[in-house]
Amino acid sequence: MSSNRTEFDLTDRATFSHWTTITLRYCDQDPMGHVNNCAITAFIEASRTSFIYGLVEQADMKGLEFVLASITIDFRRELLHPGEVDVGVRVIGVGNKSFSTGYGIFFKGECVVTARCVSVFFDMETRVGIAPPQSVREYLRAEMVRS
Amino acid sequence: MSSNRTEFDLTDRATFSHWTTITLRYCDQDPMGHVNNCAITAFIEASRTSFIYGLVEQADMKGLEFVLASITIDFRRELLHPGEVDVGVRVIGVGNKSFSTGYGIFFKGECVVTARCVSVFFDMETRVGIAPPQSVREYLRAEMVRS
Amino acid sequence: MSSNRTEFDLTDRATFSHWTTITLRYCDQDPMGHVNNCAITAFIEASRTSFIYGLVEQADMKGLEFVLASITIDFRRELLHPGEVDVGVRVIGVGNKSFSTGYGIFFKGECVVTARCVSVFFDMETRVGIAPPQSVREYLRAEMVRS
Amino acid sequence: MSSNRTEFDLTDRATFSHWTTITLRYCDQDPMGHVNNCAITAFIEASRTSFIYGLVEQADMKGLEFVLASITIDFRRELLHPGEVDVGVRVIGVGNKSFSTGYGIFFKGECVVTARCVSVFFDMETRVGIAPPQSVREYLRAEMVRS
Repeated sequence: MSSNRTEFDLTDRATFSHWTTITLRYCDQDPMGHVNNCAITAFIEASRTSFIYGLVEQADMKGLEFVLASITIDFRRELLHPGEVDVGVRVIGVGNKSFSTGYGIFFKGECVVTARCVSVFFDMETRVGIAPPQSVREYLRAEMVRS
Repeated sequence: MSSNRTEFDLTDRATFSHWTTITLRYCDQDPMGHVNNCAITAFIEASRTSFIYGLVEQADMKGLEFVLASITIDFRRELLHPGEVDVGVRVIGVGNKSFSTGYGIFFKGECVVTARCVSVFFDMETRVGIAPPQSVREYLRAEMVRS
Repeated sequence: MSSNRTEFDLTDRATFSHWTTITLRYCDQDPMGHVNNCAITAFIEASRTSFIYGLVEQADMKGLEFVLASITIDFRRELLHPGEVDVGVRVIGVGNKSFSTGYGIFFKGECVVTARCVSVFFDMETRVGIAPPQSVREYLRAEMVRS
Repeated sequence: MSSNRTEFDLTDRATFSHWTTITLRYCDQDPMGHVNNCAITAFIEASRTSFIYGLVEQADMKGLEFVLASITIDFRRELLHPGEVDVGVRVIGVGNKSFSTGYGIFFKGECVVTARCVSVFFDMETRVGIAPPQSVREYLRAEMVRS
């Protein structure tokens, strides 16, 4: 993983250029009366898959698949139904067989959640991680430094 | 339940005046490659709770709670991620301790799902169904005949 | 659909011979403090898919796929986390391109939910409903009358 | 947080004494054909809440509530439906207003997922983090060193 991962302020909307809006659902809530962490994981996934589909279109990644290798989520504020959240995402690191994405979830102007994911390039037949073409890593590195 | 329940064409957008937009999420999908029926149940609930919150505001229903007594869902077409759905809802029947709501879920101009729910007025302390004030039933009957 | 659908008492454990045990999860609950209806839909699906996988093994159904055409669920009692539920399932009707299954969900000795589903035989390529071989319908009819 | 967090091998069943068994559900799967990461988050939560309920009973924690402040999940192997998983959990760190728990998820004898959570003691009225009584922290530290 790149060592510049920590330079991105995921609580700042300006960090992100790819956005996904997600409407909250009643059953996202749990008995604590707030949006449950499992639902928040689904918001991050919705953002990640939307972003990666876009990358696949733009870069020469057709046929590549990705699986989630790890995720870290920081729950910064309670998120209360109803309403909608905006999820920002960007590339924050590029490795050999994997790349990292960073997320900020915003609700009514405030950052409520930040997260980091590592996604691994994946061969659907052998079901193991693989190194993508060098051009793909270069594309992702260019995405990472893009402001 | 009212015997006029069947007069509403739930596949017709004109049947509905209350609408909820719901964004599809990647994990709404199952291995069949389409949006799973459990997710669709969540869309109906999102519409139902939004609609009922509105009724509670407009009618004198504060303090009343509702639980779902039954649901029937007809899956008319496959629903494919990504995108968003519009869920229409209206009152289709009013009983003594309960009322019925009808739903149409629309995706890219087509009705993909229709559904009917029976909700029961509920006492949170005793956790049993109760009859609401007569004024509430009258309000719901007026809603039912409203075009 | 068969007209004998209504003869099955889905609140009686003796109606069922195929059972699936499902452990409740914290996030199955909603702000009402009980298990949410969307989670219950997932329990029914877990039972249905387990049952149908068994049928596929026993009957000559390999290569057939099924999609859910409709579902009706009656919520008879509140279901409270934690614990586990037993879901019973059986064939309750056989049509030309579809068949019906009935469900009883039991928690601590009581029936809390009953449900009925119509599943349609499905061609994954054309993504439309198809009639299965006659032998499959005969197998399902034999299942339906099996005590 | 305690600096001894890293001494626990979460891939080893012997690390854990509290276990929760969770049955997989069909809709836990996504279009990749494996159990989705959001479902795995729900398994960890099921384990965490079961464990914390036990602590609340044993220690003098009645009236204390907990919210999830952060979670890190490592997806080590694909998890394939159907079946059930065993989730082990233990205390791995104790802070002033929070404590950390570690998890191992095992399927057919193999560790498929490990995770770490930070839970914060929470005042339901003010909805902010609070320091629990010293006796609670001591109880948790004793749990942490318990083999």
